[in-house]
Amino acid sequence: MRGVYLVTDRGLCLNRSLQDVVLMAVRGGVSYIQLREKDLPTSDFIEEAAAVKKILLPFQVPLIINDRMDVALACGADGVHLGQQDMPYDKARKLMGEKAIIGLSVETWEDVESVEKLDVNYIGVSPVFATPTKTDTKEPWGLAGLRKIRAFSRHILVAIGGINISNAQAVAEAGADCLAVVSAVCSADDPASAATELKNIMDEVTKKRG
Amino acid sequence: MRGVYLVTDRGLCLNRSLQDVVLMAVRGGVSYIQLREKDLPTSDFIEEAAAVKKILLPFQVPLIINDRMDVALACGADGVHLGQQDMPYDKARKLMGEKAIIGLSVETWEDVESVEKLDVNYIGVSPVFATPTKTDTKEPWGLAGLRKIRAFSRHILVAIGGINISNAQAVAEAGADCLAVVSAVCSADDPASAATELKNIMDEVTKKRG
Repeated sequence: MRGVYLVTDRGLCLNRSLQDVVLMAVRGGVSYIQLREKDLPTSDFIEEAAAVKKILLPFQVPLIINDRMDVALACGADGVHLGQQDMPYDKARKLMGEKAIIGLSVETWEDVESVEKLDVNYIGVSPVFATPTKTDTKEPWGLAGLRKIRAFSRHILVAIGGINISNAQAVAEAGADCLAVVSAVCSADDPASAATELKNIMDEVTKKRG
Repeated sequence: MRGVYLVTDRGLCLNRSLQDVVLMAVRGGVSYIQLREKDLPTSDFIEEAAAVKKILLPFQVPLIINDRMDVALACGADGVHLGQQDMPYDKARKLMGEKAIIGLSVETWEDVESVEKLDVNYIGVSPVFATPTKTDTKEPWGLAGLRKIRAFSRHILVAIGGINISNAQAVAEAGADCLAVVSAVCSADDPASAATELKNIMDEVTKKRG
């Protein structure tokens, strides 16, 4: 996994539909889309996910569903993202199958250690910085925490929380394989060019790593 | 399906744990348990469902999960109950398999007509009477509505909404195959004897039907 990973928040799309923002984001070069919906009825969430999947198909961008494996299975999503309060990883893997992309958030060092034995596809380092878009999180990891996880973990690291154009390079250099953003793209004047800028920053750092 | 069907509401269990109330209810003769949780994190819901499944096993009482097919799959529940805003029936059947118990709520006459072609295991006639325990419902069906559905539908009818000892016989006589209750058991001084009383009323009416 490389590049920019958009986590959606319909409330931050500034009068644009979530589907429009997703389309702009993938046109701009986003590599992964995660749909996060905490308040939608199940049927609406499935409908939205199916519509987004259709948008992503020509771009071959995987669709990942936050928490709700029922929605992921119903819409044929490519994976699920699990928080520490979501379905246990082993159950999700069994139900989603070997090919599914399954990521797990780590919010404490204990989480980092315990995920080491699991064959997750990535870990979400959450939050790197304090962020107003998700309020149920623990202390931010900061760049130092991210570096520490990079040195310890065998997993792909998706960094999330307060990442934007001004700090993206530092986050990439601290060891993130992938930059996950919410408002930096959802609330950008131009989501496509915001995605492109973030992608370019990530690509530059990846290139230097060789 | 026959007898009494308990839909849980942890907020109505009067300082008793939900698991204790479930155990008392099945000892009293409840035939089905539906877990309904709208605010629990997924991991907690799965844990609770697994614990309840263990309680039900010796009684051979099926466990049905409201809405959340992910939770049902993760805990190995016997079925799911779907509202009109939940996963579409066809998707749920495909994912849960042929043996799963899948029920669907009907809140309008349109719902009643459209469910006729589906192989649901039962329909939930919801609400029969106005009820404070679920506020997102349509107009109550009343006994006349229940009779009308009985005359029209080929399905097993589980009546829900405001059913208690004082009106259980009338609901059964209007055509319910199964009485679903929430507070009549969850909030009863003695959930076991409340369940037994409701079961006896239902059994009497079923016997008279021959």
